[in-house]
Amino acid sequence: MSEPYSPSTKRPIVAIMTDFGSEDGDVGVMKGVIAGITPNVHIIDVTHEVAPQNIVSGAWILASGYHYYPPDTVFICVVDPGVGSTRGAIAVHAGSWFFVGPDNGLFTYIYHEQPIHEAVVLNNPAYHLPQVSSTFHGRDIFAPTGAHLAQGVPLHDLGEQVDPATLQRLAAITPERQGARIVCHIIHVDHFGNLITSIPLTMVPMLFDSPSARVDFPASQAVVDQRRRFFAQGEEGSRPFIFADSSGFVGIAVRNGSAARVLGASVGTPAILTLADSKAL
Amino acid sequence: MSEPYSPSTKRPIVAIMTDFGSEDGDVGVMKGVIAGITPNVHIIDVTHEVAPQNIVSGAWILASGYHYYPPDTVFICVVDPGVGSTRGAIAVHAGSWFFVGPDNGLFTYIYHEQPIHEAVVLNNPAYHLPQVSSTFHGRDIFAPTGAHLAQGVPLHDLGEQVDPATLQRLAAITPERQGARIVCHIIHVDHFGNLITSIPLTMVPMLFDSPSARVDFPASQAVVDQRRRFFAQGEEGSRPFIFADSSGFVGIAVRNGSAARVLGASVGTPAILTLADSKAL
Amino acid sequence: MSEPYSPSTKRPIVAIMTDFGSEDGDVGVMKGVIAGITPNVHIIDVTHEVAPQNIVSGAWILASGYHYYPPDTVFICVVDPGVGSTRGAIAVHAGSWFFVGPDNGLFTYIYHEQPIHEAVVLNNPAYHLPQVSSTFHGRDIFAPTGAHLAQGVPLHDLGEQVDPATLQRLAAITPERQGARIVCHIIHVDHFGNLITSIPLTMVPMLFDSPSARVDFPASQAVVDQRRRFFAQGEEGSRPFIFADSSGFVGIAVRNGSAARVLGASVGTPAILTLADSKAL
Repeated sequence: MSEPYSPSTKRPIVAIMTDFGSEDGDVGVMKGVIAGITPNVHIIDVTHEVAPQNIVSGAWILASGYHYYPPDTVFICVVDPGVGSTRGAIAVHAGSWFFVGPDNGLFTYIYHEQPIHEAVVLNNPAYHLPQVSSTFHGRDIFAPTGAHLAQGVPLHDLGEQVDPATLQRLAAITPERQGARIVCHIIHVDHFGNLITSIPLTMVPMLFDSPSARVDFPASQAVVDQRRRFFAQGEEGSRPFIFADSSGFVGIAVRNGSAARVLGASVGTPAILTLADSKAL
Repeated sequence: MSEPYSPSTKRPIVAIMTDFGSEDGDVGVMKGVIAGITPNVHIIDVTHEVAPQNIVSGAWILASGYHYYPPDTVFICVVDPGVGSTRGAIAVHAGSWFFVGPDNGLFTYIYHEQPIHEAVVLNNPAYHLPQVSSTFHGRDIFAPTGAHLAQGVPLHDLGEQVDPATLQRLAAITPERQGARIVCHIIHVDHFGNLITSIPLTMVPMLFDSPSARVDFPASQAVVDQRRRFFAQGEEGSRPFIFADSSGFVGIAVRNGSAARVLGASVGTPAILTLADSKAL
Repeated sequence: MSEPYSPSTKRPIVAIMTDFGSEDGDVGVMKGVIAGITPNVHIIDVTHEVAPQNIVSGAWILASGYHYYPPDTVFICVVDPGVGSTRGAIAVHAGSWFFVGPDNGLFTYIYHEQPIHEAVVLNNPAYHLPQVSSTFHGRDIFAPTGAHLAQGVPLHDLGEQVDPATLQRLAAITPERQGARIVCHIIHVDHFGNLITSIPLTMVPMLFDSPSARVDFPASQAVVDQRRRFFAQGEEGSRPFIFADSSGFVGIAVRNGSAARVLGASVGTPAILTLADSKAL
């Protein structure tokens, strides 16, 4: 930070997602490292409240929004139970964005949805901090590497190229259809207590046009068979309904209440969506 | 974001207030949308912890601080239980600031305190995202509209002008005086457990000069009759006292403790302030 | 904010640490004040979740990361139980950074670790807001002063110089050695439930090379006698182990679990570290 810099015509954007929470100073330290490398950077927090060490949750939250960020945004993502072990550290150019983090499946949705242009393992120490700890690669490897990338360093300088096919992927992120039924699970509970299922809306284009739709929760035997296009539709009350969540997945909500509490469901709870006419799906 | 931009001599500021919390990626997505439209923007979080769908709380938190932000700051405010219904979406130029959000009373204090220069309904889709969901107008309408406004688009381009007198207002935000008494309620409990009443300090200029002052809580029969000019004044202990909160409202605190816990009060709890000499108020 | 500004070749960085939490609008208001004074500023949140009015916790969190921020970063730190009383308000130039806040010991670690070049009391009202409340100096004194400093105002303009030796310091932040034992306490519990002790790693260079190491918790009679270099090492399970925390202090963790819960320890819990060969320390 002691040299002058010439502002580029385009401002580099770094978006950070972690499971670090906000009570420690760790996210701030990562931003300090980034600001020292990329003075004109705009840093955006995706969230730091991913459930601790929950790669599936992190992968889904990232998937629900990355495509709204400007082209060339560098996502630094740290949900990293294997930090310090032999798990790889990677940077990937996929679609219009860059993704930096551990190679543990956190980018699985990205690989499904976007063409992977190039991927490297972060084995060039010139872009790490001089001292790399064994417990905080967010600070020592991912932040400086992502910052250099945002500042214009080419991806292939950050380390050795790897075959995209060898990158770690989470198994079975998209639920399977079984006749008229789609067996899924709750993949996210949002701040309002809305339940988000693992079913992408693109899998059920007839969700609102099918004669009937229902979600069964086998564990509690609860059934949800109402549909609404927006929250304020219909009467108030604690009756849950199916809706199209803005994340691009099928959701279940209660008007002015918590579907998670009303239905006793949480992340991982199994559910089954059935549309009336499976041929019409 | 793919064109170059010429930094203006003044940096646009967008301040965001929502009830979205920090565990989902929603606030980050709004910032991504804004950064793609207004590259040189400085985004500031007012708070994202407004009590879910609580318009009164959101209105008050905004009121307690907006006048400390620089002129021309664009406030994007989303506490929006009616999202997707026919409630209006508006942008208002009031005092030296701009306010973008649902037309549901969230800006009531602003309308009381500032001259309204111009107000529009956001019915020009050119400034929305191409696809508008029925559940996340923060991302699809308010963020892009606010970003364009911050980038210099004139207010009247965003939609049709409306008569400021027709904008939604919350009823009775200022408590009424009944002789020597002011019947009020707790409008906010801050992070330290301090209780903030709905009485603006401007309504009680004699608060510290009156011979006596007391706050009664009818529900618990608790009485607070001490006054202090700052927290560290007087002895330690759990005895609550009346103070002038920095938000511009009458508050009740306990030194190094939580007045909310000591008095068993929370948002909405009724209270009555009595000053000794009502004529001197 | 109404005049144009000429972007400097170096972007000013202000880092903020408070115990204000995120539910009120206070941190946002401080940022609004700063942005009005230093238009090109990059504001970074250290954390706002310091335990309320806990100066020791705040001092430690700041210490764990400040040296990763770029030179000339201005840290505005507000953990301030004495606000409004006669406690001093200071700005200190130490090492490559600037520190602004109450003179209550919050910067004790900095004074231990860095040369103090200059220190002033903030008694020049020209750099405060026109109206200074008795309860929110973060907004009225520290934010504007820190912003002016970041914008290039020399430290000695902010107020009268003071002898660094007279600045308030917390007593005994470094534990004392008693033969082979180091009597310490838990100084921080991080987001994952890891326990961080008050023992700097520099005090125990042989931590991993000593034939044996153990931490005793006298209150619960728990003993931890395993060591690991990184979290994913060894088998899963709830057995706690000693590790070198990335903050630079000795830590105790449980793989994929909370050491705080497993050991029933929290901030302030006494502990004793014993290395096999005290001469080798």
